[in-house]
Amino acid sequence: MSEPVLHELAARISFLLGTWQGAGTGEYPTIDPFAFEEEIRYTHIGKPFLAYAQRTWHPEKKQPMHSEMGYYRPLENGGIEIVIAQPTGIIEIQEGTVDGQRITTTSTLVARTTTAKEVTQIERTITVDGDVLRYEARMAAVGQPLQHHLSAELKRIG
Amino acid sequence: MSEPVLHELAARISFLLGTWQGAGTGEYPTIDPFAFEEEIRYTHIGKPFLAYAQRTWHPEKKQPMHSEMGYYRPLENGGIEIVIAQPTGIIEIQEGTVDGQRITTTSTLVARTTTAKEVTQIERTITVDGDVLRYEARMAAVGQPLQHHLSAELKRIG
Repeated sequence: MSEPVLHELAARISFLLGTWQGAGTGEYPTIDPFAFEEEIRYTHIGKPFLAYAQRTWHPEKKQPMHSEMGYYRPLENGGIEIVIAQPTGIIEIQEGTVDGQRITTTSTLVARTTTAKEVTQIERTITVDGDVLRYEARMAAVGQPLQHHLSAELKRIG
Repeated sequence: MSEPVLHELAARISFLLGTWQGAGTGEYPTIDPFAFEEEIRYTHIGKPFLAYAQRTWHPEKKQPMHSEMGYYRPLENGGIEIVIAQPTGIIEIQEGTVDGQRITTTSTLVARTTTAKEVTQIERTITVDGDVLRYEARMAAVGQPLQHHLSAELKRIG
């Protein structure tokens, strides 16, 4: 198949398109702080959304750590909806805004399978500056209030 | 990175692993019946789940139609949990059982973004017989009761 034309709604977040690699750190009151390396891919198929897939791995041991995937749905009104599935048994609906090359969303729903850990809220901020992508995630989970959990900086490699 | 060892829990559904291609049909009271071609991929990274990604396209025009992705989490007790994100703004939690090479699940939750269509329940059955995968999906949506929506048959191509 030939390369599809970017949909006008997907074009509102075209600054995300491509493959990104970098590194980040995580912390939470219930666990030891940790570092990770990461790859994120945003792709499109000509429809009004981008597909999102992410994986992290241990900086030295290189074993896989977290991964997640989903879709970004920009709206006519400047808003955005994001759906994400996590292999830990967590699913998220995020809603928020696209402001320039900054996307800020908060979960309207975090739900989990029977055996998954209790996660109750997630806020995500993504900012792209040229070929640098930075994100932060804030999380309320296992009885802890909403607070900083993850931050990372990645560079576009393709 | 070298090929990771299959996790013992993921091994319970190792019959899904690989890339599958085939065709299917869909119907629902609110839309015209339709046919599609499809590719499904199940992959693992050595953790206790499989990643799932699927896309369909029009049999003649070849344009992309549906896509979705998520994770399959087999449990110690023979059960399974599935989380799925759809670019239509739908997320699902499916729970059910693995019986031989047959997986039967029903949604414990279907949720949607603000602008997504109303989908309230989805049941999924997947059966693998050698290198043939068949699935059926039943759906309750837009005020209609739970009923047959999709069926497809795919062959393992890799």
